[in-house]
Amino acid sequence: MDTDKLDMKSPDLVQENLEKIAALFPNCVTEGAEGKAIDFDLLKQELSPAVVEGNKERYRLEWPGKREAIVTANLPTTKTLRPVREDSVDFDNTENLYIEGDNLEVLKLLQESYLGKIKMIYIDPPYNTGKDFVYKDNFTMDKGEWSIVNGNKDEYNQRLVANPETAGRYHSDWLSMMYPRLKLARNLLTKSGVIFISIDDNEYHNLKKLCDDVYGERNFVGNIIWKNVTDNNPSNIATEHEYILVCAKDKPNLETFWKSRLSDVKELLIKKGEEMISSFDDSDERQRKYTQWFRNHKSELWPLENYKFIDEQGVYSGERGVHNPGKEGYRYDIIHPETLKPCKEPLMGYRFPKETMYQMIKEGRIIFGKDEDKLVEIKVYAKEYKQKLSSVFNLDGRTGANELKALFTENKKVFTNPKTIKLLSELFAFVTRQDDIILDFYSGSSSSAHALLDLNAKDGAKRRFILVQLPEEIDETKEAYKAGYKTICEIGKERIRRAAQSIVNGQLSVLNEKKEDVQKGINGQLLMDNGQWKFPEGVLVYEEAKTLLEEVNHLQLKINNLDTGFRVYRLDSSNMQDVYYRPQDYDQNNLELFADNIKSDRTADDLLAQVMLDWGLPLSLKIEQVEVSGKKVFKVAENSLYACFDRGIDEDFAKAIAQDEPLRIVFRDSGFKNDTAKTNVKQLLKQLSPETEMKVI
Amino acid sequence: MDTDKLDMKSPDLVQENLEKIAALFPNCVTEGAEGKAIDFDLLKQELSPAVVEGNKERYRLEWPGKREAIVTANLPTTKTLRPVREDSVDFDNTENLYIEGDNLEVLKLLQESYLGKIKMIYIDPPYNTGKDFVYKDNFTMDKGEWSIVNGNKDEYNQRLVANPETAGRYHSDWLSMMYPRLKLARNLLTKSGVIFISIDDNEYHNLKKLCDDVYGERNFVGNIIWKNVTDNNPSNIATEHEYILVCAKDKPNLETFWKSRLSDVKELLIKKGEEMISSFDDSDERQRKYTQWFRNHKSELWPLENYKFIDEQGVYSGERGVHNPGKEGYRYDIIHPETLKPCKEPLMGYRFPKETMYQMIKEGRIIFGKDEDKLVEIKVYAKEYKQKLSSVFNLDGRTGANELKALFTENKKVFTNPKTIKLLSELFAFVTRQDDIILDFYSGSSSSAHALLDLNAKDGAKRRFILVQLPEEIDETKEAYKAGYKTICEIGKERIRRAAQSIVNGQLSVLNEKKEDVQKGINGQLLMDNGQWKFPEGVLVYEEAKTLLEEVNHLQLKINNLDTGFRVYRLDSSNMQDVYYRPQDYDQNNLELFADNIKSDRTADDLLAQVMLDWGLPLSLKIEQVEVSGKKVFKVAENSLYACFDRGIDEDFAKAIAQDEPLRIVFRDSGFKNDTAKTNVKQLLKQLSPETEMKVI
Repeated sequence: MDTDKLDMKSPDLVQENLEKIAALFPNCVTEGAEGKAIDFDLLKQELSPAVVEGNKERYRLEWPGKREAIVTANLPTTKTLRPVREDSVDFDNTENLYIEGDNLEVLKLLQESYLGKIKMIYIDPPYNTGKDFVYKDNFTMDKGEWSIVNGNKDEYNQRLVANPETAGRYHSDWLSMMYPRLKLARNLLTKSGVIFISIDDNEYHNLKKLCDDVYGERNFVGNIIWKNVTDNNPSNIATEHEYILVCAKDKPNLETFWKSRLSDVKELLIKKGEEMISSFDDSDERQRKYTQWFRNHKSELWPLENYKFIDEQGVYSGERGVHNPGKEGYRYDIIHPETLKPCKEPLMGYRFPKETMYQMIKEGRIIFGKDEDKLVEIKVYAKEYKQKLSSVFNLDGRTGANELKALFTENKKVFTNPKTIKLLSELFAFVTRQDDIILDFYSGSSSSAHALLDLNAKDGAKRRFILVQLPEEIDETKEAYKAGYKTICEIGKERIRRAAQSIVNGQLSVLNEKKEDVQKGINGQLLMDNGQWKFPEGVLVYEEAKTLLEEVNHLQLKINNLDTGFRVYRLDSSNMQDVYYRPQDYDQNNLELFADNIKSDRTADDLLAQVMLDWGLPLSLKIEQVEVSGKKVFKVAENSLYACFDRGIDEDFAKAIAQDEPLRIVFRDSGFKNDTAKTNVKQLLKQLSPETEMKVI
Repeated sequence: MDTDKLDMKSPDLVQENLEKIAALFPNCVTEGAEGKAIDFDLLKQELSPAVVEGNKERYRLEWPGKREAIVTANLPTTKTLRPVREDSVDFDNTENLYIEGDNLEVLKLLQESYLGKIKMIYIDPPYNTGKDFVYKDNFTMDKGEWSIVNGNKDEYNQRLVANPETAGRYHSDWLSMMYPRLKLARNLLTKSGVIFISIDDNEYHNLKKLCDDVYGERNFVGNIIWKNVTDNNPSNIATEHEYILVCAKDKPNLETFWKSRLSDVKELLIKKGEEMISSFDDSDERQRKYTQWFRNHKSELWPLENYKFIDEQGVYSGERGVHNPGKEGYRYDIIHPETLKPCKEPLMGYRFPKETMYQMIKEGRIIFGKDEDKLVEIKVYAKEYKQKLSSVFNLDGRTGANELKALFTENKKVFTNPKTIKLLSELFAFVTRQDDIILDFYSGSSSSAHALLDLNAKDGAKRRFILVQLPEEIDETKEAYKAGYKTICEIGKERIRRAAQSIVNGQLSVLNEKKEDVQKGINGQLLMDNGQWKFPEGVLVYEEAKTLLEEVNHLQLKINNLDTGFRVYRLDSSNMQDVYYRPQDYDQNNLELFADNIKSDRTADDLLAQVMLDWGLPLSLKIEQVEVSGKKVFKVAENSLYACFDRGIDEDFAKAIAQDEPLRIVFRDSGFKNDTAKTNVKQLLKQLSPETEMKVI
């Protein structure tokens, strides 16, 4: 095969495994009948006696289909993702992705473009309650041409099968579904990446064993208990919780990340604090200013939102109580420094003796209220803050349904048991920052995207999402079907559109309220200049209005920055004809029949997507279309990749394009004017833009 | 072997398994070289093709040592339990047991006496945190004579080994420890019995798989989350919970039990209610009387303690709120029937429209307060009550330490992380009633016994406990060791003694307060008569004092009934010489050397315990010692078992004893006056008391 030719298929993970072994044990690489191979007997000798095999007992979870599941995970796919512009929102500029199709195939296709790039995965897979459907990855059924785009019902029925508790392979089928997906997903995580998996009693124990297998037991981070219901009609023990299992790609890295994020936030608080302390003499004034600044940035400084006062020691809150918990404490008077009257005493007295309290007052660690009617508090400084996510969440599960209902007001119920965005936001906020990518490959009603947009709107970060969902057909008897939604993906996409709208509207209405306040204060209309609001000329501006305008502009910036779009891709068979992958199977004399190895119904957009995946470029990169020498050229992320799938590529075109010095360029193999042109184009590019790597398909 | 001879060892469970198969597939029973055997090829044919074997994948948790663990569980033991009167409290009358020794052996020894007799098991095994010790059941090490009584340190070191996370068999050793114990424990449960197992993230998933194995997945009842700590110093996700895994012996039976217990309580309430309704015309009077009655019995009627009012529909509470939760409800006036003023309205209005509310008032389902200042309430009748135990418990784990500290005031800390009796009481109350037996075979500091006594004191039931604990030696550097406790058992036993004392004292002080109240009212001293208090003659007694005296006597009865004693047994080698089990190994001519096959240091008390275990009699049966024809005779549970281990048993003795017609009688084989006497005694008993079964040891 032409070495310049792109593979146009997902990576062969067996080959990658072979390379890993070869790198560690070069002596174990040999040649077999099929090519390069590992001499397994030799490898065994290297590990002897620390080897178990055959019938010997070992610590493991086994199920019928486990071996096949491992093979399944490693098999490459030739499928591709085709862009669906008409379903997308702001396709050219957004960095969010919504992918329709079987998540196993999709995860394989993302292996190169998103290798080590996903900060957080959240999934809500089937819990295997006996009423769920699971995916059957039986590739012997999968031969030939079938297409999710065509919505082939037989295909769904084969792939997505009911798994009642009475089935003989009840747990095994579920395990076989989860295993390859978890394995492929792990490759996508960053070094400090982490996966959160919703599950309940039905499979928690099996999932934990799977994760120990795939992620390594030492990377188990915790199991979050979500108390989500109050069961008023139980048979005996009322199960009122479910789980979220958390595993890291590498736990020490994750912990380092958590520490560094916390210290970043603290640093910012302390820096700003020092600024404020030095710039104002009056402590009331700097506290007011600081509180103002904090109010602007509060949501970005999560989880330190209690800290909003300042003194020489830095930022502090007053959250720690002085009362004695449970039993009778110490009794004495504390005189309020202004009213000179004794402060109100806690019900059970103080938890410290008088001496300790007076020492703290002397050290300035006690906060007094406006007058003696308020209990005193103890300062807790931001620098002493310890970040945590409790393993037990109390959050009514019906919230999720209500959040969805608020968006789909015209329908009673379009989706059952969506996860609540409150829970997801909290997890996202704890694990991600700035432009991290969050992947959800069992995305259902798109709660993850909703939560992410909501969180971005609040803290101004630019987290991006990749959602994957099989376009499961909706039963015709269902409310959602009657409302016009034929697949879960249709609900999922509409949810994102509506959630985004609702979030933006919410932000705008807050903005407008604040704008009105400013306008009242200055008695005039604010002007928009370069995305920011400013005062009209010649009006008197009070200090308060200036501070308020800062808030307005801060909010405006967050609204401007919010990426509410998403690119839709749909899983489909390769853009390439079979002959592309197996030319040896075809009569060389008849190759003319396949003068073009690209399927006739595929567009340049389609080809670009497959090329990006194959070359390992994220699908969220900015794509521009320009015309060069009369030909349509895609420019991906400036000069990262140029693609031209037009015919008649010649020397002139090469010269024109070489001026931009693209890092990568791709053509159709059949796109060149003739064979000479192909050779010359290659030569010209090498000469004029030596950094450019040229490939053909 | 003499067919009259007792086995003096625990049952051979392999033999029992063989019998189970033989009963179902008689055609598969054959004869092998070692005797009766299952023709496994034939059995396989009966099951074909539903068989997996050899290398084929199956759904299972496997670990090195699993096969051995199964063998371990089935092996009989010749060990025995020896009574320790000096450590016991009220040995002759108590029905509680405290057993010192390896729980695996103890569970084997209890197999016959407690088969199907335990209602609830609670255990708190090592969580395998990397700092725990686990039991190594390596029986090849266990040959020869060793004795826990001797406190042999080498022996402990062999059996109880540290299991650090870095150990190669970290999970496997823990699994191998748990498996046979869970398996043996299951046999002891009643048909509606249930086991509760405390555990945390380290082994929950493995434990769940084990229980699925041993108890069957369909008998999984639930996983209780115990939020027990607030971790203020977490590294990332703060694990603030642990688990209690719950499995039934047979879940449908357990559910039936729960239903019937609930309906029993309801029935009692309704019956008492009807009595009250018919005996008083005045509804205020009957409500007052009923409330009084309820106050006496409240703790016995758990969990119905909110129900204490009565009308024609039966007992009711006023717990269900009329307010509209969350958002604005309906607004209207309800006129108070006595003050004729509008009742106070809930903050957010009512949750029902006016029409519904008035309908309920008409039906008498609305409870009005004394005047219009109280919100109205809705009656909820006891007959509508639904019982539940929430799967999420919020209960500070430090409570357990404080409960222990309150008993061991002279020491700082005698035991780490005891379970809190509040949690255990709630579980016990939910699962057991009356004279159920609760077993805890990892009993540690005896929290289970403490909780059980506390609960019995409250509700007057007669639950009994069996606690098992290995006498682990306490490290010399520990607080507890310095306080004089050499083993965990010493702490455990002292805990029970002190807990009992403290509970009784608590009850007595309540009793005395109430007694004083009565005495004040009647102006005289109450008299004790036959365990009940009564008024002195000739004093004027008011109606109120009569009611109060009822309460006093009810409380007195509970105190009288409380069994605060316990019998201590200690695991030891058999009372019998080796020759008893393997006479064939000994030269028949030298048998005289073993004229007595009982070890010289064993007492009649010891022999009685082993005989009771062997004959399947509970160790908690009442034991009396009497003299018959000058010989010491033990009478167990009246005439259930007579035992005489004295020498010189002859015809006269047989005649005397036959008058009582004991169901079972046991002698020493060497206890008969001579061989003729033995034959005659047997004959005489058969003649004079045909129901009597005679055995020898």
